[in-house]
Amino acid sequence: MDRIYLDNNATTQIYPEVVEAMLPYLGTVYGNPSSIHSFGLEAKSAIEEARKKIVEFLNAKDTKNIVFTSCGSESNNLAIKGVALANKKYGDHIITSKIEHHAVLEPCNYLAEKFGYKITYLPVDKDGSVDPDDVRKAITNKTILITIMHANNETGTIQPIEEISKISAEYDIPFHTDAVQTAGKLPLDVEKLGVDMLSISGHKLGAPKGIGALYMKMGKTVIKCCAQKRDVLSDLFLEKGAEIQQLIHGGLHERNRRAGTENVPYIVGFAKACEIAAKNLEIENARLSGLRDKLQRGIIESIKSARINGSTKKRLSNTLNVSFEGIEGESIVYRLDKEGIAVSTGSACTTGATEPSHVLSAMGVHPIIAQGSIRFSLGHMNSEKDIDRVLKVLPCIIKNLRDMSPIWVEGVGLVPIENPSDTEKTGFFGSLKKLLPI
Amino acid sequence: MDRIYLDNNATTQIYPEVVEAMLPYLGTVYGNPSSIHSFGLEAKSAIEEARKKIVEFLNAKDTKNIVFTSCGSESNNLAIKGVALANKKYGDHIITSKIEHHAVLEPCNYLAEKFGYKITYLPVDKDGSVDPDDVRKAITNKTILITIMHANNETGTIQPIEEISKISAEYDIPFHTDAVQTAGKLPLDVEKLGVDMLSISGHKLGAPKGIGALYMKMGKTVIKCCAQKRDVLSDLFLEKGAEIQQLIHGGLHERNRRAGTENVPYIVGFAKACEIAAKNLEIENARLSGLRDKLQRGIIESIKSARINGSTKKRLSNTLNVSFEGIEGESIVYRLDKEGIAVSTGSACTTGATEPSHVLSAMGVHPIIAQGSIRFSLGHMNSEKDIDRVLKVLPCIIKNLRDMSPIWVEGVGLVPIENPSDTEKTGFFGSLKKLLPI
Repeated sequence: MDRIYLDNNATTQIYPEVVEAMLPYLGTVYGNPSSIHSFGLEAKSAIEEARKKIVEFLNAKDTKNIVFTSCGSESNNLAIKGVALANKKYGDHIITSKIEHHAVLEPCNYLAEKFGYKITYLPVDKDGSVDPDDVRKAITNKTILITIMHANNETGTIQPIEEISKISAEYDIPFHTDAVQTAGKLPLDVEKLGVDMLSISGHKLGAPKGIGALYMKMGKTVIKCCAQKRDVLSDLFLEKGAEIQQLIHGGLHERNRRAGTENVPYIVGFAKACEIAAKNLEIENARLSGLRDKLQRGIIESIKSARINGSTKKRLSNTLNVSFEGIEGESIVYRLDKEGIAVSTGSACTTGATEPSHVLSAMGVHPIIAQGSIRFSLGHMNSEKDIDRVLKVLPCIIKNLRDMSPIWVEGVGLVPIENPSDTEKTGFFGSLKKLLPI
Repeated sequence: MDRIYLDNNATTQIYPEVVEAMLPYLGTVYGNPSSIHSFGLEAKSAIEEARKKIVEFLNAKDTKNIVFTSCGSESNNLAIKGVALANKKYGDHIITSKIEHHAVLEPCNYLAEKFGYKITYLPVDKDGSVDPDDVRKAITNKTILITIMHANNETGTIQPIEEISKISAEYDIPFHTDAVQTAGKLPLDVEKLGVDMLSISGHKLGAPKGIGALYMKMGKTVIKCCAQKRDVLSDLFLEKGAEIQQLIHGGLHERNRRAGTENVPYIVGFAKACEIAAKNLEIENARLSGLRDKLQRGIIESIKSARINGSTKKRLSNTLNVSFEGIEGESIVYRLDKEGIAVSTGSACTTGATEPSHVLSAMGVHPIIAQGSIRFSLGHMNSEKDIDRVLKVLPCIIKNLRDMSPIWVEGVGLVPIENPSDTEKTGFFGSLKKLLPI
């Protein structure tokens, strides 16, 4: 049985051209980029060439803007903790949203718990969108950072980054966006987006797991930080060339912003993947949104009580998040897996969590409905045949699971549970009776 | 011209078997290890198999002991900042040595500057060895961490880790060792060494750059931390299962000790490299020390005023650090590079630094002599032919450089400089006149 992979927001298959580009650096070109002999210079030159490609990919200005990291999580940590810890004396307030990835939420929580930072977690509307006006309202004279993701990993909803960056610029507050889910799916132009920092990750766009980058607008990030102290900050940080506090201390790598011998093969592969993704972006987006829309239509037509989560207008072309009433998403994932089809319930990073998705909860989706959600995320390897196969097997799986469900009656839909004490044992269906509309 | 690589302490060529082991994970096995479908399970299974091999490599007890990181620097940062920040209320004193790698010194400096920790930097003797008695004397009732490297990267001098660990155990203080330079060169047995934490890095032993690991003795690390508060700590941390503070916050990867999607290909490759290194260790050590000793003898016999730095008894079998009086190490590196031979002046990570090596300085080597040092570090690819070639070209290079040197006279040796104001312009030879013995 040919397997079908529809979990590209969790990770992607590496492009064969990327592997090919990396192979010399896994073989004969093995110097340490910090070494001054020819082996080192070859490696150094490879990473600087790659850095130029990342600059181009993001429409950044200079290779100085790019810090290579080991993953998107590290990029987010470096941006958030880096700016916050370096600038606490100028303020201790951070604005983010309720639907961020855990690699943004957890650094914020850490700063709050350990160092007393105040965090505003902005709400979202039913489509999962942050309202720029809410950003404006949340700003105080202690705000030192705004971090709002570019597009949500679970629903694909694209956030109004350009509007938010206009506000951040108006108040001179550094603005970071987690673009891990948009790199390779949307055109990334840091100038147009107006961001001061932007995180990307290799394995979401056809490079390997274990490489990421942080775009940092040099100097400005810091000069902007708290207008009232602008001169002090400017002197302090521009002189030292470090606008953020390092996460990993040690050698002078990455202009003293990230210690550790550079991962030369992956850096080369990452740049190659960005190149490929950028080249194919328009055609691939049209193709994927065609496939995704066919999948969405097919599901809505063949399965009742299925609800689309997230914006259907401002959405990544490859993402479809659907709730199936009366059943658990995890059961659907397992059933589809048996058929050789890989999907997810949401973020892979929170696997094992028993709570419903924090993203869907923030959008006001009832916990019972949220628990019945799965995410399809398409990628460069998917074809129409894959969609046909999903549409062939999914209705039977949903019917079968609903037949076994204690909260679903065929022809009726969701029903209250007769004996709440029984249901409490299952945990998931716990407080269903009083919550259900019928 | 065949090039000769003698800079294996900076980084190593990847074993072809390691690349072969990784290839499936750069190709068809590409799931996210956190995903619950078959693609994810394959990836998860690969990293857990690899973890078992690392456990075996270190003679650890359990796969829970191993946290995969992105490099040795990250491992050191996680160990040092992780323990220090999680336990500040029980003490703020850290003991380390003057000869540590910057990935240990800089996290310590950071903790001191940013959070007021007190750091004791222990001296070393002329061989570059820490005296265990000095460790004992430095301990206070505020000491929460001892971190002493296993062997020095520049000189190869092996530290008395077993003696130090006995002292740390006696006082119930967590003991970390940076074993980045010893993994693959010395047998690593965490039980025999008696350490609570140990850092290793892939690219120093035939795996790629961009993967590391931290061994952590579960629970004990924390229970030990400050005997007087043992119960409190035990309750606090064992319950939560986290003895150290994370460096990268986000998803629940690596038992909530290091967020970020796991680098599956490199983790697999790292384990394979450890397997190969362990298998070849004894034979390879004998072979390399034979080659190294031949190189050392050859240099001493053919070049006058060459001094060996570091212990000649307790030394890594692959490492040879030599000072050539009257010239600069960097010039030797460039000249050898022109002959296709790669060596270094010391740590690659401090390239660009104008100061003499902090390691040699701590050993009492005069700055002028320290500046004339180079490090040869052999590896699995080197053969007798390579040593012969070095011994053939090096004497001419040294002679040539000394002929041009303002502080060397053939037949006399180091000489005082006649016009100090001239030499000051060169920086390096600055205060030579008053410092030189002749």
